[in-house]
Amino acid sequence: MIRHSVVFRLKHPKGSAAEKKFLADAMMLAKIPGVEKFEQLRQVSPKNDYHFGFSMEFADQKAYSGYNDHPDHVGFVRDRWIPEVESFLEIDYVPLV
Amino acid sequence: MIRHSVVFRLKHPKGSAAEKKFLADAMMLAKIPGVEKFEQLRQVSPKNDYHFGFSMEFADQKAYSGYNDHPDHVGFVRDRWIPEVESFLEIDYVPLV
Repeated sequence: MIRHSVVFRLKHPKGSAAEKKFLADAMMLAKIPGVEKFEQLRQVSPKNDYHFGFSMEFADQKAYSGYNDHPDHVGFVRDRWIPEVESFLEIDYVPLV
Repeated sequence: MIRHSVVFRLKHPKGSAAEKKFLADAMMLAKIPGVEKFEQLRQVSPKNDYHFGFSMEFADQKAYSGYNDHPDHVGFVRDRWIPEVESFLEIDYVPLV
């Protein structure tokens, strides 16, 4: 199991229609083959500057690579992520043992 | 639900006995009242410099505060976290809607 997550901050004002649309449209990522347990989350700790997070799991590296290379993911990154996201950090977890 | 997580890097060499001991001893955090779904994880993304993560869930802010203020947590932070952790980032998630 690989748990891929990204914590991020949008360029859009908080609570704006553009923010809502980005989050709603990003739900398409959940439909890409290999994606399991897709979650959209609100980041609430005052100890960092991010506002949202996406989390998903893959069975293995092959499934993760299939997602990364999928045209729907590539297109989302190009057309929505890069233009609309101000800052982000990717974190990938696997079980410790 | 509040999902509290911390991604971190230890001062200890990778694979060292001190690293193993830190992770083993940190399992005591799972026993603090209010802590649910405690996980120790290995961070594997090359896009950040952290090596490990802890994740846990709390039913609500009261449970989270109870954990934060619990003497076992306070003692762990003072006696182990601060001396042995090189860098870290705390991320707290709640459901988006």
